[in-house]
Order: sequence, then C-alpha cells, then structure tokens
Amino acid sequence: MTSEFLSSKVRAVVLEKYGNPKDVLRVHTYELPPITPTTLHIRFLASPINPADVNQIEGVYPVKPTFTKELGILPDGEHKELAVAGNEGLAEVIAVGDQIKDFKVGDWVVIGRSGFGTWRTHAVATPNDVIRINHEGIGLIQAATLTVNPCTAYRMLKDFVTLNEGDFVIQCGSNSGVGQAVIQIAKAWNINTINIVRNRPDIEDLKARLKSLGATYIITYEELKSNEAKDLIKEWTGGNDIKLGLNCIGGDVAREMSKYLGHSGHHVTYGAMSKQPFSIPASILIFKNIKFSGYWMTEWNQTHSKEERAEMLNEVIKLIKQGKLGDVAYEEVLWGSQTENDESLKDKFLNAFDKAGAGFHGKKQILRMQS
Amino acid sequence: MTSEFLSSKVRAVVLEKYGNPKDVLRVHTYELPPITPTTLHIRFLASPINPADVNQIEGVYPVKPTFTKELGILPDGEHKELAVAGNEGLAEVIAVGDQIKDFKVGDWVVIGRSGFGTWRTHAVATPNDVIRINHEGIGLIQAATLTVNPCTAYRMLKDFVTLNEGDFVIQCGSNSGVGQAVIQIAKAWNINTINIVRNRPDIEDLKARLKSLGATYIITYEELKSNEAKDLIKEWTGGNDIKLGLNCIGGDVAREMSKYLGHSGHHVTYGAMSKQPFSIPASILIFKNIKFSGYWMTEWNQTHSKEERAEMLNEVIKLIKQGKLGDVAYEEVLWGSQTENDESLKDKFLNAFDKAGAGFHGKKQILRMQS
Repeated sequence: MTSEFLSSKVRAVVLEKYGNPKDVLRVHTYELPPITPTTLHIRFLASPINPADVNQIEGVYPVKPTFTKELGILPDGEHKELAVAGNEGLAEVIAVGDQIKDFKVGDWVVIGRSGFGTWRTHAVATPNDVIRINHEGIGLIQAATLTVNPCTAYRMLKDFVTLNEGDFVIQCGSNSGVGQAVIQIAKAWNINTINIVRNRPDIEDLKARLKSLGATYIITYEELKSNEAKDLIKEWTGGNDIKLGLNCIGGDVAREMSKYLGHSGHHVTYGAMSKQPFSIPASILIFKNIKFSGYWMTEWNQTHSKEERAEMLNEVIKLIKQGKLGDVAYEEVLWGSQTENDESLKDKFLNAFDKAGAGFHGKKQILRMQS
Repeated sequence: MTSEFLSSKVRAVVLEKYGNPKDVLRVHTYELPPITPTTLHIRFLASPINPADVNQIEGVYPVKPTFTKELGILPDGEHKELAVAGNEGLAEVIAVGDQIKDFKVGDWVVIGRSGFGTWRTHAVATPNDVIRINHEGIGLIQAATLTVNPCTAYRMLKDFVTLNEGDFVIQCGSNSGVGQAVIQIAKAWNINTINIVRNRPDIEDLKARLKSLGATYIITYEELKSNEAKDLIKEWTGGNDIKLGLNCIGGDVAREMSKYLGHSGHHVTYGAMSKQPFSIPASILIFKNIKFSGYWMTEWNQTHSKEERAEMLNEVIKLIKQGKLGDVAYEEVLWGSQTENDESLKDKFLNAFDKAGAGFHGKKQILRMQS
C-alpha cells in the first residue's frame, strides 16, 4: 500500500555534531526516499520539546541520536552524516511497505524508542520504531505527549512498591510534567500524594492548580525544612508510612524528602534538575531499610516488549479518556511549513527551544507540524 | 529436667541508663531465678564485643537492651531496672524447663536476637531467644562469633544480586570482621572480590593476609582515587560488570566505590565507620540503574523464621567445617570468675572494651567466661 505522498520535502531539525543546541542545530530540507516493502512512511503531527532532548544534543545523554548519510546533502555541499533531534512525537502513517501487515495508512503512531528523531515533518520508520495507538477520544496534543511524562509517572507508581488505596506517596518537582501526571494517576487510583514545590510569588495559584489536579497535600520546600514539617506530615498521614518518594530534583530537597519515607520505603530518582547529587545517611539505609533506585523511561522501553509498551499506553490512554489525566500546560508552535524558509523555521524552533529550556515553570513547547 | 546448677552467682555487665560506656557500665552480681517449666538456663561460654554494642549502650541504636527489675538490687540498695549489655554469644544449656522438648542439657546455643544481653555468665532464656547449633567440628570461638559477622557476609552475598561463579564483588572496609568473612565466603563460591583497604605502614602484610584468606584483588583507597584505577579494575574484571558493592565505611570511599559498579549493580550499606553520609549522583541511579540498599542483620533475624535462621547458621557452619571460613583475629579475655570482685572484673572488661573500640585494626575482643 502506498500513499499519495510522493516527493514532499522533509523539514527537519538536524545536527551534524554534538554541542550547544544554538550552535549545532539547523533546519534541513531533504527528500523522503521511496517506500520499500519493509518500511513505513510517517508524517509527524506534533512533537514536544522535552528537557532530556537538550542533553542528547549536547552529546551527554547515554542514548545518542542516529547519525546517517541518508538525510541528503547540506546546502554547503558536503555529504555529512546528520541526525534528527527530538525523541517524542505523534505521527500518522502515510505509506506502508507491501510486506507490512500490522499497519495501515491513517494509523496514529507514537515513537517507541529514544534517538529516533521526531523534530521533522516526515520520516521513514520500521514497525519496531513505532507503536500504534487507539486515539479515539483523546486529543492530538495528549497523544503527542503520551510516551514520556505520563508513562514515567505510571511506571514509577507501579514498579517499585505495591501501592494500595489510601497509601501515601511523596514527590518533589511536583509541578513538572511527570509531577503533574503523578498527581493525577495517583488520584485516579485513590493514592494520596504529598507534593513538594518551590516557593514562588504565585504559590497560592500553584497550590490551587495542583489541588485541582488531585494533589492531596502540597508543601513548599521551605516549609519541609522547618521544624513543624514533621508534625504536619504526621498529621496528614495519620502516622501511616509514606511508601514511595519520587525525585527529579536531587540535592537537599531529595535528601530531605528521604527522611519522610516510612520503613522499607523506596526513593526513586528520575531526574536531577538541581544538578546536585544528594547525600544518604547510612542510618536510613540500614535501620529504616530505605531503598534508592533510579528510573529511566528509555531503559524501560528498551528492556520491555512491544506488547508491554502497548499495554502501558492503553492504560494511560484509558485514564485520559476517563478524564482523569489532562493535558499539561502547553504552547503549540506551528512549524514545518513547505513554504517557509529554513532560517525562518530555525528561528521559530530556537525560540520554542529557549522557552522549553527556561525550566518547568513555563508551558511545554510542542511543534505542531503544518501539513 | 533440671541441672546441678542451683544458686551460682551471675556476673554481668549491666547498665541502668544509656550513656558513655565508661560511665554507665558496671559489673553486677545477682542470683539466677529458679528454673520454670517454660524457661531454659544457659551458661555463657564466650561473648564477643562488637562495634554496634557501643551504640546500643549509648542508646542510639534502634534496638534497645531489655531493662528489667529481675536482675536484683544494686549494691547501693535501690531496686532499679537494669539491662545486660552485649548482643552476641555462645552458651551451653544447663537446665531445661519441664515443658520444653526441643532442648537438652549440654546443647550449644547462640543468641538469636538483639538486646538479649550476652555479657554475663548465666541467663534465663526462652526457646525463642536461642538457636541450637551443631558444633561438632567447629571451635568454641568460631561458634561464639558466628551470628554477626559471617552471617552478615553470607546474607549480603546471597540476597541482593544473583552471583554466579566468576562474578565480581567490590567492598570497602575489607579488613573488618564482615569484610574478611565476605572474602572467604566469596572465595568458597568462586566469586572474585576486589577489596578496598586504607593505606597503612604495614600495607603489604595486610595485603598478604587478605590474599591468604582468598581476596582476589586488593586496592588501597588512595589507589582507587587515582587516574589509573579505572584501567586497573577493567583489567582485573576483563571488562565484566561488578555486580555487588558492600559498604561499611560511607563517605567518599562509598561514593567512589559506586562508580565501579556495572549496570544494574547493587550497592549495599551495612555500616558507616567514617560516620559520613555519601553522595549519589543521579546519573548512576538513572542511567546505570544502580540500586542502593541497606542491610541490618538484626532486622533480618526479626523478619525471618527460626528455621530460616537455623538454615543460614548450618550453611555457615558447613563452610567453617570445610576450612573455608576461619577465625578472625581475636583476643580472649578470661572473665566472670566467681572469686574475682566486681571492680576487678569491670576493669578487665573496660580494658577489652577499649581495645574493641580502637577500631578494626585490632583483634576482636571476646569474653571467655570462666566456669
């Protein structure tokens, strides 16, 4: 089966070497190769800019972008290896190789692996690169932001301790994309969350917003360090143990959070926004049996079958359809037009990239591809 | 069944409140109560002084000694609650209550729980306090030092990762009692050990001694911090992952050791001799999937059945009988004589206690009770 799509230009954000994104990223235009019996052609609908993308462009992320000579020649005439940046994205299947039975034109797919390159208008994919999703009843932006934040939250709530209704989870960075997903999924499962956030001028607004998502309790980091925190949290939990701590910050707040875990609690690190390591006193390891682990969505995807990944996506989609997991705040950037020139698209991209890098206060930047 | 033992004086190291051991410990003489249908009388043969005993006397250990009025009246005439210190010991059953079927006079038993109080010549015990051991073929000192160091080493090698022949373990504090047991048990199971020790004037002697126990490789902490360490360890392991790290030191050495664990390795903390917490960079949690746990023999004993504890002891005893697990260096202190006065016994005890506290360079101090 082939599509009507034949020789449109692909617009992509590419790099030819690692470095500061401002220096190494460019917008590149090239042609999609013809369909083969074992490949799919996909057209991206929307691709978010996530924090880890930056590290990948800098070359400091364990999973590297795929460099290839198949993306054509740069305007300077040299045939260099290029990689497309971006790791998360929603696409529509527009052509299917004759030997592929599992996909049809019009299917919506999400990208199932890191390093694929999602900041482009079209791509060649193999059936292993993508996972088809049943998008009936969920929005395009929700589908485009499905695989990183909500899945990370879902897995961390499932895989480290057994959480029953009424149990307690504590997290820092509660206002991050994952943090908000944790609040909502926990709420859907009747699990209580204690949410640590940084103090800020509009703290009451933030508290109200997280409350509206389902946050059970909210405490600023400054309050957490105070003498009253212990009694306050004890009052909240009714003396019950906090079973799970989720950490994307590191440094002092991660250490402080550990103290509030109950016996045999689990502290899971999935980020380090503070860029600081955190210290662990031996006593909580030895006498409280607290365990410290890391979580990395990329590795989970690599070590689990396509069926397991699809099952997880279906569960998350179900929560979205039930209205239990909403959009994060986002901003669409219309991008990839065939008529706009590369430099103009690059400016548009870098502007979105700047906003995405400005931290987790802002809105998620999502490239919305113009067909 | 009753014994010939009727009204001998019990000599015990007791405390009436927590504090500096020098200030709060005294030797106390009292009478053993008559045997009852549900109790055992035991006579201690040997009781070691272990590092954690100090913390317990200071009141900073999570398991507290048992304070009771049943130990008689102090010379000053006040009937205070007293506790006997010491947690590890080997005893002989000298009287058995009529309703007890599982023990007979002459059995050797070790103490199966913390806080029992082993620095005494005799005690009343219940069948749950003690575990009978088959001591045929093992020495008295080996039996007396069985339950803390070798069992800790045995469990840590068993319970955190699956170790196969040829696998690698790294540990710091390799010259400690547990460290030496780790070396020997790993050797018996054909597991390679990389042993971190502190540099010292007689470092070559120490290396030779640990080698003779079965240490595969030995490295000083100073060498570990050097630029060459990475290549050296890679050469040792042939590039294979180190699966398990055992840490009783904390601080910089524990952090440094973590770097050498392979993907999905496990870092187990069972002590903190440096009294320093250690810091964990998020990257090794997230991208290397290193896990950090604690191990505490006391908790293992509390959460496992008597059968499981007996099985572990039998395994350790088997290793001893096979000559694979030898004595640690020790010094016997003849103690508890009926004819020596309390003050003299106290001096003798505190002298041994000082030596035990002088660190892990020295020999293990073992009270050898005089019958």
